[in-house]
Amino acid sequence: GMDGAPPAGSPAGLSAYVAVSQLLGLTLMVATGAWLGRYRGGVAWQSSLQFNIHPLCMVLGMVFLQGDALLVYRVFRNEAKRSTKALHALLHGLALVIALVGIVAVFESHRAKGIPNMYSLHSWCGMAAFVLYLLQWLLGCGFFLFPGASFSLRSRYKPQHVFFGIALFALSITACLLGITEMLLFNIRDSYSRFVPEGILANTLGVLLVAFGLVVGYVLTRDDWKRPPLAEELALSMDFKTLTEGESPSGGSQ
Amino acid sequence: GMDGAPPAGSPAGLSAYVAVSQLLGLTLMVATGAWLGRYRGGVAWQSSLQFNIHPLCMVLGMVFLQGDALLVYRVFRNEAKRSTKALHALLHGLALVIALVGIVAVFESHRAKGIPNMYSLHSWCGMAAFVLYLLQWLLGCGFFLFPGASFSLRSRYKPQHVFFGIALFALSITACLLGITEMLLFNIRDSYSRFVPEGILANTLGVLLVAFGLVVGYVLTRDDWKRPPLAEELALSMDFKTLTEGESPSGGSQ
Repeated sequence: GMDGAPPAGSPAGLSAYVAVSQLLGLTLMVATGAWLGRYRGGVAWQSSLQFNIHPLCMVLGMVFLQGDALLVYRVFRNEAKRSTKALHALLHGLALVIALVGIVAVFESHRAKGIPNMYSLHSWCGMAAFVLYLLQWLLGCGFFLFPGASFSLRSRYKPQHVFFGIALFALSITACLLGITEMLLFNIRDSYSRFVPEGILANTLGVLLVAFGLVVGYVLTRDDWKRPPLAEELALSMDFKTLTEGESPSGGSQ
Repeated sequence: GMDGAPPAGSPAGLSAYVAVSQLLGLTLMVATGAWLGRYRGGVAWQSSLQFNIHPLCMVLGMVFLQGDALLVYRVFRNEAKRSTKALHALLHGLALVIALVGIVAVFESHRAKGIPNMYSLHSWCGMAAFVLYLLQWLLGCGFFLFPGASFSLRSRYKPQHVFFGIALFALSITACLLGITEMLLFNIRDSYSRFVPEGILANTLGVLLVAFGLVVGYVLTRDDWKRPPLAEELALSMDFKTLTEGESPSGGSQ
């Protein structure tokens, strides 16, 4: 709140954790860029460097943007729910588009080099994460963004949406770590065990990805940091419940 | 409860999810055994097969047993808290011992073959998971098992304990997936992309590990499946709060 009163402002600590998450997010983009630029020849669409588009897009879309999309209800806790929800859907949509570009890049690069697709554990986990993430986004839009879904249906789907949102974020980070390991073992298999700089840098990127996931996960799951309903939302949902379910406003669950 | 009354018994669905988790846990042990036995020559301590002790112990200790230790408060929800807590600590302790055997196995196997330690992202994530898991166990024993920690200190540490417990479980599964990818790229690098049976089996083990993590994570985080305090615990903790903090028994938080 503009008046700085505790119930309307952000809880103590939350802003610091969000700041750390954004610092980690930027650092992991820099680490990805440094790895690809310094040791892998950079990125370009129409060339042998097309493959490198893949890790860049997946870290940006499936980790940084997905993580930030998850955080919007904590960061914009005093905005109208409608706007925050739209931003949540928009950031996830942007993350999906960027991830799709990254997936097209690896399929095209494989085709150009005659490498088969979808044989590795990385590809299985990564594709599962992407397809389920897309499904989750479609379901989320269907249940929460467009009218039509009843209040009680939304209430019942919401815990599933939250659980799978965090689980898919964790699976996306796992898929990135598997991709880093694959890339290192394909490119520097023999020197990796001699602690060469590229290996240390890529390992560090992996650690940064885990750290970003931990901080975002902590912010999301901390009970007293959850977004409280604004006064007007509470009144509205109670009225709505009373109208649709014939419940007394004082006896609602949650 | 023996009388089958809903508040004392298990919530509908919980038993089914726990049953699925145990089926998945057994299946992933079978898949690990099948991979090592059928394609990697089996396991033995004093031989070139010593390395294979490592994946076997890590899947058993850091995944199956750790997961089951996390589930005890949901499964034994009507037992005295004291006994359930002891079982929780005991299973985690057993998981740690088995994981330690698995770590010794890989260090000894590396020494025998002249392979350096701790250079890969798998080793960084795996060692971080083990050390933090040990630390979490020690802190858990210190705060919750031995007397001395105050009621308010326990209440403040508990959410951290729960968050890091689930996060370390996820990190342990991630480390296993990284280990599977390393093993496949070291052993069947050239045939992996031809969808050979060993590759498919090991990928399937990875998918089973993710599925086990998802089911256990779902059971743990579902609000209405959390263990409610027994009537006598509630009375006791309220008395204790009143005595130590001078609060009215009816005005307690949580």
